[in-house]
Amino acid sequence: MTGQTPFAAPSELDEKIEETTRFAPKFGPDGLIPAVATDAATGRMLMLAYMNAEALAKTIESGDAWYWSRSRSQLWRKGGTSGHVQRVIEIRTDCDQDAIELVVEQAGPACHTKRKSCFYRAVSADGATLKFQE
Amino acid sequence: MTGQTPFAAPSELDEKIEETTRFAPKFGPDGLIPAVATDAATGRMLMLAYMNAEALAKTIESGDAWYWSRSRSQLWRKGGTSGHVQRVIEIRTDCDQDAIELVVEQAGPACHTKRKSCFYRAVSADGATLKFQE
Repeated sequence: MTGQTPFAAPSELDEKIEETTRFAPKFGPDGLIPAVATDAATGRMLMLAYMNAEALAKTIESGDAWYWSRSRSQLWRKGGTSGHVQRVIEIRTDCDQDAIELVVEQAGPACHTKRKSCFYRAVSADGATLKFQE
Repeated sequence: MTGQTPFAAPSELDEKIEETTRFAPKFGPDGLIPAVATDAATGRMLMLAYMNAEALAKTIESGDAWYWSRSRSQLWRKGGTSGHVQRVIEIRTDCDQDAIELVVEQAGPACHTKRKSCFYRAVSADGATLKFQE
């Protein structure tokens, strides 16, 4: 991204990435990190999307969830057109700082199909078919 | 992978990937799909890892979580050395079938740092530092 990010690069750490108190998210070779939005009220997964450094910086700065759309190759404020915004209550990272959890208050459904969560289908025991859960 | 997978390729679908009852997971250009393990008892996120087609097929077949280790470039049965296995209660996929949720019964801590979940640090309001939550 152009401009400054509040967070560091993993290469700047001289402490263990699992135990440091410095935020140094590891973006992949494509410049992206997976971000999972979970419901602040229930703890359940709502969706999985991707952020680049700019989306993450904008999320931190604005308190609304911003992602990088891989299909449209553009920054995307969740709910920008649908109104189904995600107000970010907390941002977490995992042990090796290569994944993000966004704890959010979700306005309306999280999924573009109008379901509450994107994970609305379960795989059958034989792994061939899906069962709708809503 | 060599051999057959129970699931289809997205290219074999002639219905919408969001509404089909066929399981057709979309692996990325690197052959991987992100898989989030959530706790069957609480619904909370435990960890995010990656699967290739073989790891997913072995997970379906065995009922234990198998992943692909990007750092070691090998298949990896979660808990194979630590004993912290994940018994899979349900496998879900998301709207566009490019992410997996594994609802698991986790033996012991999910994280290699011995924490219950890998997401044990929260990002500060200014986006620079992390606070431990356990």
